[in-house]
Amino acid sequence: MPTPAPTFVHPHDLEGRAHAFPHRHLLGIEGLTAPEINLVLDLADTYVAQNRSQERKSRALNGKTVVNLFFENSTRTRTSFELAAKRLGADAINMSVDGSSVKKGETLIDTAMTLNAMHLDVLVVRHQESGAPKLLADKVNCAVINAGDGQHEHPTQALLDALTIRQRKGKLKGLTVAICGDVLHSRVARSNIHLLNIMGATVRVVAPPTLLPAAVDRMGVEVHHTMATGLRDADIVMMLRVQSERMQGQFLPSQREYFRFYGLDRDKLGLAKPDALIMHPGPMNRGVEIDSLVADDIHRSLILQQVELGVAVRMACLDLLTRGRN
Amino acid sequence: MPTPAPTFVHPHDLEGRAHAFPHRHLLGIEGLTAPEINLVLDLADTYVAQNRSQERKSRALNGKTVVNLFFENSTRTRTSFELAAKRLGADAINMSVDGSSVKKGETLIDTAMTLNAMHLDVLVVRHQESGAPKLLADKVNCAVINAGDGQHEHPTQALLDALTIRQRKGKLKGLTVAICGDVLHSRVARSNIHLLNIMGATVRVVAPPTLLPAAVDRMGVEVHHTMATGLRDADIVMMLRVQSERMQGQFLPSQREYFRFYGLDRDKLGLAKPDALIMHPGPMNRGVEIDSLVADDIHRSLILQQVELGVAVRMACLDLLTRGRN
Amino acid sequence: MPTPAPTFVHPHDLEGRAHAFPHRHLLGIEGLTAPEINLVLDLADTYVAQNRSQERKSRALNGKTVVNLFFENSTRTRTSFELAAKRLGADAINMSVDGSSVKKGETLIDTAMTLNAMHLDVLVVRHQESGAPKLLADKVNCAVINAGDGQHEHPTQALLDALTIRQRKGKLKGLTVAICGDVLHSRVARSNIHLLNIMGATVRVVAPPTLLPAAVDRMGVEVHHTMATGLRDADIVMMLRVQSERMQGQFLPSQREYFRFYGLDRDKLGLAKPDALIMHPGPMNRGVEIDSLVADDIHRSLILQQVELGVAVRMACLDLLTRGRN
Repeated sequence: MPTPAPTFVHPHDLEGRAHAFPHRHLLGIEGLTAPEINLVLDLADTYVAQNRSQERKSRALNGKTVVNLFFENSTRTRTSFELAAKRLGADAINMSVDGSSVKKGETLIDTAMTLNAMHLDVLVVRHQESGAPKLLADKVNCAVINAGDGQHEHPTQALLDALTIRQRKGKLKGLTVAICGDVLHSRVARSNIHLLNIMGATVRVVAPPTLLPAAVDRMGVEVHHTMATGLRDADIVMMLRVQSERMQGQFLPSQREYFRFYGLDRDKLGLAKPDALIMHPGPMNRGVEIDSLVADDIHRSLILQQVELGVAVRMACLDLLTRGRN
Repeated sequence: MPTPAPTFVHPHDLEGRAHAFPHRHLLGIEGLTAPEINLVLDLADTYVAQNRSQERKSRALNGKTVVNLFFENSTRTRTSFELAAKRLGADAINMSVDGSSVKKGETLIDTAMTLNAMHLDVLVVRHQESGAPKLLADKVNCAVINAGDGQHEHPTQALLDALTIRQRKGKLKGLTVAICGDVLHSRVARSNIHLLNIMGATVRVVAPPTLLPAAVDRMGVEVHHTMATGLRDADIVMMLRVQSERMQGQFLPSQREYFRFYGLDRDKLGLAKPDALIMHPGPMNRGVEIDSLVADDIHRSLILQQVELGVAVRMACLDLLTRGRN
Repeated sequence: MPTPAPTFVHPHDLEGRAHAFPHRHLLGIEGLTAPEINLVLDLADTYVAQNRSQERKSRALNGKTVVNLFFENSTRTRTSFELAAKRLGADAINMSVDGSSVKKGETLIDTAMTLNAMHLDVLVVRHQESGAPKLLADKVNCAVINAGDGQHEHPTQALLDALTIRQRKGKLKGLTVAICGDVLHSRVARSNIHLLNIMGATVRVVAPPTLLPAAVDRMGVEVHHTMATGLRDADIVMMLRVQSERMQGQFLPSQREYFRFYGLDRDKLGLAKPDALIMHPGPMNRGVEIDSLVADDIHRSLILQQVELGVAVRMACLDLLTRGRN
C-alpha cells in the first residue's frame, strides 16, 4: 500500500513573508520584532493544523539534519524538538552530554565545531549556562536554536505560550498576564516577559522578593508580592515550576507553605477575570505551585494545548531558520 | 541509484479480516479471542516473509509516530519495537525514564498526557508496576501497547512465542507446553499461560512452590514441582529467566543449586518428547536456568527464531492498532 | 513543497570497481590492500562532495538497518556513524551497553546473535576489548564494522586520516608522518601505522619508551623518543589523545610535564617541514598534548577536516559493505 507523498503546502501569503524572518539563529526573544513573532506564530498555526490532520508529516526539511545537543536532561523538550524535526522530514540526532563531564568554554566550542564539521542544518542546544548557545552560534555555520540556557532565555517556550494565548484569546495585545513563582531562576519567565512586552501585553510578576531578580524594575513589568493583588483581573495566569534544584540559599519555604502563599488553587484563581486561563510550562509539581483541580480544569487550563502547540512552534522555527540556507 | 518504493502488499484475505481486531490497545493477552490471536499471527507471518526478503521496509505506518516509553531498561525489547516501527515507515522516538526519578500515579499520567498532546499514534510502554499501561490507555487518544508491566503481562512476548511454536509445530492446539522456573515474578509466563489456554494447548508450570503465585490453582495449568514430572512428554519446554533482582525474600538458592534442580540440560530434556523444542525469552543466564549445549542446539532451540519473529509480531501489532485510527 | 528525490549517482568508474572490495567486514586495516584502500577513499571523495552539496542525502542504503552497538561511550564516533547511515537513507538504531553490566564472551555473542536475528545489514561495534568485533563477525550474517576495539584497531579513523592527508597533499606515498604520544594504548595509532605502511608512507612514532608497545620494533616504524628528532622534516604531525583512563601503572607525568616534552606547540612544530600539517583524532586535551595556537591554525590544522571527512569515509564503508549483500 504505497502512501502518496504528503501534499502539505504553505499558504502563499506565508511563502511571501518567509524572507521577513532575517535571523540566522533563534537565541532569545529579546531582539525580535512584533512582525517577526507574528510570522512564527502564523506559520506555526499552519503546522498545528497539519499535526491535527491525517497527514502529519511534510517534507519541508527533507534531507536536512537536526542535532539536539542537550547538556541538561529534558526528555520533554528534547522529544518535542525531535518530533518537530521528524514531522518535517529531517533526520534528527540526539546527543545528551553530561554537563559535569564536559569542561567549560573551549570544550563546549570544540563539541560544536565538531558537529558543525559534519554539515548540520540546525543545532538545538540546551545548556546550564546562560549564553552558551550564543557562544556556539558565533562559531558554527548552521542555525542554532536555544532550547534553554541557564537563567537566560527559552525562546520556543515563550513562542508556544504566545501561540496558545493567541489561539484562545485571539490576540496578545492589551491582555494582562500574571507570571507567578520563581521568576528569579526562570528562563521561561524571562523569555515570556520579553515577548509579551514586544506584543503589547501588560505583564505582572508575582513572587516573594527573594524569588525576583535584582533588576526586576527594569524589566517592564508590574511587581506584585501577593497573589491577591497580582492575579486581580488578570486574563492569563502563568505558573512557573518550582525548581528546588536551582535554589541555592534563597527563599526555600516548605512546599506546603509555598503552596499556601503562591500555589494556584480555585480560591486564588477567583481573583482573576472570570474567563482567565491557566498556563504552566511543565512538568508540574502538583500540590506545590498548582492544585490539580485547577491544572486539570478542561475549560480554563491550557497546559496540554501548550504541549501540543509546542511541536508546531518548533516546526515553524526549524522551517524558517533553514529556508534558503545550506 | 534511486530505489523503487517497496511494493509489499498485505494478502487480500488479511485486508478483509483487519476489522476483526476490534481493540484500541494491546494491554494483555487476557481478553483476546482465538480468532484475534490468529489474526495477529497470520499478519505477522507476512511480516516474517517481508523481513527475510530484499525489501524489508514497507510503508504501512508512513508518517505515523511511535514512542517507546520505557520506565525499565530493556535494550532488547526497545530495539525490537524500534525496528518494527521503522520497518513500517513510522518515526520512532525513544524515551527512557529512570523509574526512580518519577513520582508514581499522577506524574506517570502527566507524562502520558504530555506525549498524547503531541499527537502520537502508538505509545509502547514498559513499566515496573502492574497496570501502568492500562492507567495510561484510559487517558490517551493513541494506541497503547504493553511492553511489560510489573508481574502482570507482556503480550507481544506471548504472541511471538505462539508464532514461533506455530511455525514449527503447525498448530498450538493440543500441544503440551512446560513453562519452567520463576513463574511467580514472570509476566512472560502469565501472558503465555493466557494465550496457550485460549488456543487450546495444555500448560504446565514447573517450579518450586516458593516461585509459584498463590493463585496458581486458578490459572488453568498443571502444577509440577520437579522437572522429572513436568517435562515428561512435553512438546515445548519454555524456560524463564531467573530474575534475581525481582526476588525479595523468596526462594534464593545458589545458582549451582538452582541449575541442578531446575536448569535445563540434556538429561532433563531427555524426559520431554523426542522432538520437543526449547524456548527462552532472553536474555539467558547460561549455566543458571539453561545449559549452553541445549540453548545452542540448532535443531531444537528456537531462541533466535523467537527474536526474529518478535520483530514481525510487533510489526503486526503496530499495523493492526493503527488501521483506521488517527 | 515536495522535494524531488536526490539524484546522487556514483561515478561509473566507481560502480565498476565496487566488486574490488571483497571483504564482508571491516575489522581492521591490517589485511587490506592498497587498491582496496584507494577504492574506499575514492568513493569517500564522492561522498565528501555530496555532503557539501545541497543534496546531502542519497538512497544507497534505503530500507537497510544499521545498528550502532557501543560498549564504550563515544558520542562523537557514534554520531558520525549515525549520520553516515542516515545520509545514505538507512535506518540507524543506537544501542549503548554499559560494559560493566555485560558479562564477557558468551553474553557478548548472545547480544550479537540477538541483533543478527532481527535482520540487520550492518553492525557497528565499539568494545573495550581487542578482538570483540572479530568474535561477533564470525557469528553474524550482517557486515561488522569495528568502530574501535580495545588497543587493537580503529580502521575508519585511519581511513579518514588517510583521506584527509590525500586531499591536502595529493598522495600518501613518500610522505613522512610522525605519530606522537601514547602509541601504546592507541588503536588509532595502530590502524594508522598499518595503513600508512600499506600506502608507502614513512611512519615515525614519537613517545617515551613507557608509552610504546614492546613489539614496536616489528611495526615497520622509525622510533623516536624526542619530538626534536621525531618531527624533523615531517610532512604530517599526528597527535594522539592522552587517555589517562587507559594508563595503569605506566608513565604518568603531570600534564604540564607531558606538554613540555611531548605536547605540540609552535616551537616543536617549527622542526617539521614548513608546510607540515597537524592532525588529531579528537577529542583534544588542549594544553596537554596540543597547544590551542597550533590546534586552531586554520592553515595547518586539519582537525575539523578529519571530522568532516569521517562522515564521508563511514558512508563509503557502509556503502561498500552492503552492496550485493542481503
